[in-house]
Amino acid sequence: MTPETTDPTLTSFIEGAAGSPFPIQHLPYGVFRPSDTAQPRIGVAIGPYVLDLGVLEEAGLFTDAALQDAAPFRQPTLNTFMGLGRPAWTAARKRISHLLRADTPTLRDDEALRDRALHPHAHVTMLLPADVGDYTDFYSSKEHATNIGTMFRGKENALKPNWLHLPVGYHGRASSIILDGTDVRRPCGQLKPSDDEPPVYGPSQLLDFELEMGFFVGPGTPLGAPIAVADAIDHIFGMVLVNDWSARDIQKWEYVPLGPFLGKSFATTISPWVVTMDALEPFRTQGPRQEPSPLPYLQSEENRAYDITLNVGIQSDGMEAPHTVCRSNFKYLYWNVCQQLAHHTVNGCNVRPGDLLASGTISGPTEDSYGSMLELSWKGTKPVALGHGETRSFIEDGDRVVLSGAAQGADYQVGFGQASGRLLPAQPQYPAA
Amino acid sequence: MTPETTDPTLTSFIEGAAGSPFPIQHLPYGVFRPSDTAQPRIGVAIGPYVLDLGVLEEAGLFTDAALQDAAPFRQPTLNTFMGLGRPAWTAARKRISHLLRADTPTLRDDEALRDRALHPHAHVTMLLPADVGDYTDFYSSKEHATNIGTMFRGKENALKPNWLHLPVGYHGRASSIILDGTDVRRPCGQLKPSDDEPPVYGPSQLLDFELEMGFFVGPGTPLGAPIAVADAIDHIFGMVLVNDWSARDIQKWEYVPLGPFLGKSFATTISPWVVTMDALEPFRTQGPRQEPSPLPYLQSEENRAYDITLNVGIQSDGMEAPHTVCRSNFKYLYWNVCQQLAHHTVNGCNVRPGDLLASGTISGPTEDSYGSMLELSWKGTKPVALGHGETRSFIEDGDRVVLSGAAQGADYQVGFGQASGRLLPAQPQYPAA
Repeated sequence: MTPETTDPTLTSFIEGAAGSPFPIQHLPYGVFRPSDTAQPRIGVAIGPYVLDLGVLEEAGLFTDAALQDAAPFRQPTLNTFMGLGRPAWTAARKRISHLLRADTPTLRDDEALRDRALHPHAHVTMLLPADVGDYTDFYSSKEHATNIGTMFRGKENALKPNWLHLPVGYHGRASSIILDGTDVRRPCGQLKPSDDEPPVYGPSQLLDFELEMGFFVGPGTPLGAPIAVADAIDHIFGMVLVNDWSARDIQKWEYVPLGPFLGKSFATTISPWVVTMDALEPFRTQGPRQEPSPLPYLQSEENRAYDITLNVGIQSDGMEAPHTVCRSNFKYLYWNVCQQLAHHTVNGCNVRPGDLLASGTISGPTEDSYGSMLELSWKGTKPVALGHGETRSFIEDGDRVVLSGAAQGADYQVGFGQASGRLLPAQPQYPAA
Repeated sequence: MTPETTDPTLTSFIEGAAGSPFPIQHLPYGVFRPSDTAQPRIGVAIGPYVLDLGVLEEAGLFTDAALQDAAPFRQPTLNTFMGLGRPAWTAARKRISHLLRADTPTLRDDEALRDRALHPHAHVTMLLPADVGDYTDFYSSKEHATNIGTMFRGKENALKPNWLHLPVGYHGRASSIILDGTDVRRPCGQLKPSDDEPPVYGPSQLLDFELEMGFFVGPGTPLGAPIAVADAIDHIFGMVLVNDWSARDIQKWEYVPLGPFLGKSFATTISPWVVTMDALEPFRTQGPRQEPSPLPYLQSEENRAYDITLNVGIQSDGMEAPHTVCRSNFKYLYWNVCQQLAHHTVNGCNVRPGDLLASGTISGPTEDSYGSMLELSWKGTKPVALGHGETRSFIEDGDRVVLSGAAQGADYQVGFGQASGRLLPAQPQYPAA
């Protein structure tokens, strides 16, 4: 861990960094294009700027052996850097923090270098931070699983028998992971609106968001080599916001017995800045008590919950800004990230740098903290007010759904930016059906 | 389609090609290393040899524009070639067929070129044919789904209500796809041997194979653009054998409600040679009648079943050769490959070149055609004889499981080679649990 880089008294020479979502204590990684035709570059966010790490690398400013050999910042994605592991992450973070300090002249006083390395956020296009080899989605919020179970099976049988014993999860679709700001097309598929009638083809009528977070895997593992829960944190690079868009009606008809498939695979939106576990270190907290006690391979001795406030807003066509429909927190999750990774690999399943493991919907204990419209509107029975007289049971065409989040300390915040997307109407007709 | 390349009267100058699993009418693609330290190369199997297509490409023997521009055969995987689509596939197949004909002197009479381009199978190491971006596994054998349903729910409720209306499938794990010949480690995980006791950690006791086939996607699609069933064949490059290794006890405890996860993700074995749909064209046949009639987006006008005989053998430590435990056929599948791909993308899910879509266990109508030990031994109640007095209910440590297959014509066969693997004992102890 690198406590000096999270020192609240640190200041940067970058104007506007202090007090912004991206202060010098933060330093999240992302991939961007400085112009429409430029090649992808790797950067960190600092205040109102994106700092191009490839430029710094070319200038010979990363002298640590772990970084020099791999040239991780002149790559089109973060996969190489993720794969280098903690020594390289620590060296890079220390170095970037040092170069951005108010009292370090290297970059501060080199106008030519600053001009090449610093881009205002508004001038760049963000890209997916990594090639995601495999995407896994867990179901780790007890409140969410209980809500869903209560709706469909009643309060007595809300949690399935396995839920308290293992972090239930499934394989998701990697190809349809998209970045913040990308429009989402309402999917068509098979629906079964009536129990007594055969299924029909048509646009999903029950389009939902799911408020989630996800972490990127760092160093990979060979097949057959489980990651122990105590070692898991060294395989976790950092986190993003995740909107696991869901078509509830497609999902309901298809998911028995093999799980969600087309009800989820049309889009999964993530935020562009990968927030490192080092930056989140000051925000660690105790997670929920686990009863019954998990099997030894899942026992997590450390506090591995993180206090990250989360917010979901919906902005309809006529609205000027999103209206908050959900306030939740990452710390509510029952199963923590280390337990998720240990469980995922206990059977010898290998992981690769850039794999994305998402949390599942993060619902909290109160009704305004539920992380999906399905729960917020309780299956559509309690429409949610958006202000202006509009209400929502599910997402409607033209709605923009905005996930945001931040870890808020006494002296600074660690911002996650946004995972947003607007819902486009379904294609009017199935092509050549 | 390229009927001239499947003409049964064609002969090659390669000795041993005629009558072998890899005659000139076949020409499957694979990736290999000519020596342990060499870079991966792309080749086709012809009789007892592997023909290095990179060497032919370097020698300027592929003159078609679609192939020249992309240089698809000097790549470490087949993804580029798969993505080029049918015009390039047809051009390459015609050209390779021409170059291998008995009456074409180009390669036949150029000893130096032959020496560089032809390697005996035994001298090369085969590699995975493609980077698999996403791996999907269907459940498309009615006999298999009925067997499993009958075992666990009784004959009356064997098929779930959705099964006859859509090809049920789920996302699988891409990272643990391995090649023929790779050993498989018996996985550990959570098991629930008794209904009345809490779960325990330990090695799976119910290790199974699943006889499947899979196809590789050719040209990809953008998000939001479904593939119509009539267009699907142009997005299907070719097929391999697939053993979807399964830990039945891990699977049983974990799979409700999100589907199979760690019970499958420890290993999926595929065969090395990708058999093109062009080579399989003469083996097309009518599939099972579909009743009720599928929704229009799933209606398949053409005969899109393929007559491919399949075989599973088990060879225990003490045996000299595998003993056949299952004889099945790809044509038994209820949902065909075009229907699978159309369904997969009906919600706008994008696909990429090299994605792998597997069939699900291919069981036939007779007891000796069941494609898993679970069915062959009927949940372990009818152990299967291996000869030599040995029997099996499930796979035991040291057993080698060998899937093989071929399309058998009147004059030649199209061989699929093998997807084999040996089961290693579980790791004696969980590391640092």
